Amino acid sequence: MVEQHEWWVETRGRGFTDLTADVQARVRQGRLVTGLCNLFLAHTSASLILCENADPTVRLDLERWFSEAVPDGDPRFRHRDEGPDDMPAHLRSILTTNSLSLPVSGGNLALGTWQGVYLWEHRTRPHRRHLLLTLLGE
Amino acid sequence: MVEQHEWWVETRGRGFTDLTADVQARVRQGRLVTGLCNLFLAHTSASLILCENADPTVRLDLERWFSEAVPDGDPRFRHRDEGPDDMPAHLRSILTTNSLSLPVSGGNLALGTWQGVYLWEHRTRPHRRHLLLTLLGE
Amino acid sequence: MVEQHEWWVETRGRGFTDLTADVQARVRQGRLVTGLCNLFLAHTSASLILCENADPTVRLDLERWFSEAVPDGDPRFRHRDEGPDDMPAHLRSILTTNSLSLPVSGGNLALGTWQGVYLWEHRTRPHRRHLLLTLLGE
Repeated sequence: MVEQHEWWVETRGRGFTDLTADVQARVRQGRLVTGLCNLFLAHTSASLILCENADPTVRLDLERWFSEAVPDGDPRFRHRDEGPDDMPAHLRSILTTNSLSLPVSGGNLALGTWQGVYLWEHRTRPHRRHLLLTLLGE
Repeated sequence: MVEQHEWWVETRGRGFTDLTADVQARVRQGRLVTGLCNLFLAHTSASLILCENADPTVRLDLERWFSEAVPDGDPRFRHRDEGPDDMPAHLRSILTTNSLSLPVSGGNLALGTWQGVYLWEHRTRPHRRHLLLTLLGE
Repeated sequence: MVEQHEWWVETRGRGFTDLTADVQARVRQGRLVTGLCNLFLAHTSASLILCENADPTVRLDLERWFSEAVPDGDPRFRHRDEGPDDMPAHLRSILTTNSLSLPVSGGNLALGTWQGVYLWEHRTRPHRRHLLLTLLGE
């Protein structure tokens, strides 16, 4: 069987939105028992990540590391049509991912205890982000 | 249903080859209506990326950032059998990806408006790169 | 058809475990002829990578680059509950991946000649790591 669900998430600018409960609920409501769940983000300036879900400091440290490794307003970047966070957003997105394939077992997302699914907004201003979930299997 | 297509791309050395139209055409010619399209690159010194497709400067900035983060000929690298770009190519490939899973809806690749699929050659000399497309779903 | 296999790998602390033969054997013993093999690691402080499989120096150089790009004990990191390698392990995991989707053709993993599948332990102490393999196709 195959099933697709699409929805939109409003971000509040750079930062993380926990999608775990939402994705888990969509998997549980669907008919898939065993197979794969692919979550796809249709943008090039935000990411999907699997991240530690217990201590919010992990996400703060993650943001800090990326903001120094790929600095906003870096004079080396020529693509700056939409501001100093434009090119860094594309780079952060390529250094992480926009497509997560996660196993489904017994009708549930088979994540590890400490794994959460997060949408990481890289633009400093709020954006509306399009998500597409594909469930494949039995 | 499952379908696989394989083909080869000749790169002109370090740089980007836009595969979007090619992958989209293969998806449209196939029988898949709803499901996943996995594109796999059978090499460890080139990548597949989803990148902004409107402004070529994005790819130039991307190349610039990576060439400084993972410099050719870095004396820290001991693996240099095939030249100063050998180990950097492996590292760039691991920092990005070799396997892209993309949703298919209504018989089309369901990419965002600004998302393009690119093969990123990391070796300075031209190479022949093997691609394998797997279509899964209904 | 869908099939899932789970198993555990004992790591010896930071370093690489070659999973290629193990994953290949599980694919060959399964019923899948054509489709996708998803390998999922249920942790946020270790990774799965596709890496050059001929010269072990590649993995040493890889470790060296990451240990300098994301240094253990970096005073910028506030998340250090489990020691100086705690936050770097999460960051390394996000810069690489925990989910690999690989094509299967003719009942075999369709990897390139020089591609190996590795579990990369990022914690300095040994850990028991949970792997889940999903086979999807015909």
